[in-house]
Amino acid sequence: MGSLPVESSVPSVKGFSVAGVHAGLKTDNALDMTLITSEQPCTAAGMFTTNLMKAAPVRLDMERLEHTQGGYRAVIINTKCANACTGEHGLANARQMAQQTADTLGCDADQVFVMSTGVIGTHLPMDKIEHGISLAAKALGQDWTAAAHGILTTDTRPKMASIQVKTAKGEYTVTGIAKGAGMIAPNMATMLSVIVTDAAITPDQANHYLLASAETTFNRIVVDGDMSTNDTLLLLANGASGVTITPELDSQFCDALHRVSMALAQAIVRDGEGATKFITLHVTGAENESQARQIGNAIATSPLVKTAFYGGDANWGRIIAAAGRSGVNFDVQRVKLWIAAGESFENGLLLFENEIPTAYAESDASAIMALPSVYVKLQVGAGQGEATLYTCDLSHNYVSINGHYRS
Amino acid sequence: MGSLPVESSVPSVKGFSVAGVHAGLKTDNALDMTLITSEQPCTAAGMFTTNLMKAAPVRLDMERLEHTQGGYRAVIINTKCANACTGEHGLANARQMAQQTADTLGCDADQVFVMSTGVIGTHLPMDKIEHGISLAAKALGQDWTAAAHGILTTDTRPKMASIQVKTAKGEYTVTGIAKGAGMIAPNMATMLSVIVTDAAITPDQANHYLLASAETTFNRIVVDGDMSTNDTLLLLANGASGVTITPELDSQFCDALHRVSMALAQAIVRDGEGATKFITLHVTGAENESQARQIGNAIATSPLVKTAFYGGDANWGRIIAAAGRSGVNFDVQRVKLWIAAGESFENGLLLFENEIPTAYAESDASAIMALPSVYVKLQVGAGQGEATLYTCDLSHNYVSINGHYRS
Repeated sequence: MGSLPVESSVPSVKGFSVAGVHAGLKTDNALDMTLITSEQPCTAAGMFTTNLMKAAPVRLDMERLEHTQGGYRAVIINTKCANACTGEHGLANARQMAQQTADTLGCDADQVFVMSTGVIGTHLPMDKIEHGISLAAKALGQDWTAAAHGILTTDTRPKMASIQVKTAKGEYTVTGIAKGAGMIAPNMATMLSVIVTDAAITPDQANHYLLASAETTFNRIVVDGDMSTNDTLLLLANGASGVTITPELDSQFCDALHRVSMALAQAIVRDGEGATKFITLHVTGAENESQARQIGNAIATSPLVKTAFYGGDANWGRIIAAAGRSGVNFDVQRVKLWIAAGESFENGLLLFENEIPTAYAESDASAIMALPSVYVKLQVGAGQGEATLYTCDLSHNYVSINGHYRS
Repeated sequence: MGSLPVESSVPSVKGFSVAGVHAGLKTDNALDMTLITSEQPCTAAGMFTTNLMKAAPVRLDMERLEHTQGGYRAVIINTKCANACTGEHGLANARQMAQQTADTLGCDADQVFVMSTGVIGTHLPMDKIEHGISLAAKALGQDWTAAAHGILTTDTRPKMASIQVKTAKGEYTVTGIAKGAGMIAPNMATMLSVIVTDAAITPDQANHYLLASAETTFNRIVVDGDMSTNDTLLLLANGASGVTITPELDSQFCDALHRVSMALAQAIVRDGEGATKFITLHVTGAENESQARQIGNAIATSPLVKTAFYGGDANWGRIIAAAGRSGVNFDVQRVKLWIAAGESFENGLLLFENEIPTAYAESDASAIMALPSVYVKLQVGAGQGEATLYTCDLSHNYVSINGHYRS
């Protein structure tokens, strides 16, 4: 599966219209609200933060997925205010945001999803939200770039990916936008993503495809290991292309969704707060995938590992020690560790095996560690379990961004 | 229980002699090896890193505790080289280090514990180690300050604590030294501590007392959440005071050991890498202590929480969100969060309850957060489980220290 680039513009998706507008939430005239609509009702699936402290829009969207009949018509997204830790009043505001969107579009409120990102513990400025909904409805068109901009917080660039798939029954498109681990001071890093397609899929298919795709993409990225109150990933399918995903088209669709998801997920890491390095972390030889992932997670969240990458230091001791405290049992005598330049294992440099470092040349290791992308492979045994995670380093700038006082 | 100060010098402990010497491991003439000896054989107990990648000295000391008959006579400690990830050769070097110490002191090698801290993956320079052992044996005396200096890596100050306890049967002393979360680039933060007493206790008592004491002291400190390959805590008791800890003296001894342990553990956090703030984190109302600790650990290891403290930001949303992703289930409607100045809950400022922030004055919160010590109390329900953790912030300097390239 080839890698999909993150685009600076993407083609339209049949039946969908989008807008990114400045509602006045941000003070610098930047786009701060996004509306995504579909002429036809969509099937949908969603994945949400597992944090107990779920923001009001998350609770609303989970309710929508459970109860709405007749398909979905829109997603309305605001920045600058996460509408989290806002109690019943916050939930009422989220409902009102959906209702106003529905009224403007001429659909039912339960056909509208809501996403918010920004400061925790403050209420939505409903006058600006209402103004933004009105502006967005008038601006609806095919400007996905504006839509991708309208959901950003401290992200440094928009994140879009798209793929057009030719089938015997015609062509369909899968397009997604995401925002990543940017912060609105003083808030959580929040991941939001909406992926739409003009293929026709059932709700069961949507759920199945989204879970499978996210498992190895959005669920394998680590910036700082914290988990937002607002993380939301939605998949909407309106069937406007005329292509129905039948069993024989199933794997092709999964592949397309996976590629869009991977491009967006990796873009989030590449644009992680203060990130200077993109690290692919491949753990193999574990007893099962879950254990491989647990080991990978211990490494990817280790401040010592992350600062070593920032310093360009081939500090394999920290990687191995992080694996050793992951809670997964493995045979230390079987541990092997390689690093390689870029995003694949080609020409991997073996640093450690048989419980001791190899006789590698420090200059070879340093040359790899100096690169903006480093591939790390850790083999912990002879098992079949493996997992690949994507992470970034921990820099001075991360501390600056997140230590900055609210203002 | 009053808090015990960390001393700049401590009284002698009967029967124990110590030395801190410059063996040439450090390049700047700083003390780099420490020897602690007892005239009489000691009972001992130890606690070690649970990391799978245990350093050679850790493996040796665990073996000692299991097999040695006839009591312990010495602890020999070196800096600059962790003797970790060094395979069989490393284990042989640790054994040789013990043997040389035993030969010099005139005891058996299995009566000698070994500790190492420093770079992972390099072998001990045995010529310098042997030289240091010889120097230390000649320098043996009562200079605990030198002994406390001889185990430091990037710690900025020595860590000593001592308490003298009067009983009807006479007086005994408990004295400890520790090194903390300093790093020798490019190595793990390593915690080493030796606590000695001239009271007489059985091996079973030693084990019981040490485990109980460490549970709420050394096991409740978080600097960066990483766990070293070398972490070691030893308790040695030689009985030279003539005071035997009988059941009626039991609780007094536990109290003394706990106070010494707490002083050393907190000193490690206060001198954490780049730390600018000391944070006491009290989690209450959980179903049990284990869950309270799990919630506390999620908060204390959260980079977002730690950078907010560094920035002096009363960012309660990050604390609550970290609790929410801890994996412990609790009722979000019962969550309450306070902060207070200093190291106790007096005049706590309630920031959050009933799922929403209180109407606290931001200036009051900021004034507390600007202090070098902040007390955080999080109540997650009505359960009896509680735990207090001690942690520090995540600063630019932490990144500088740990991102620095090996040289």
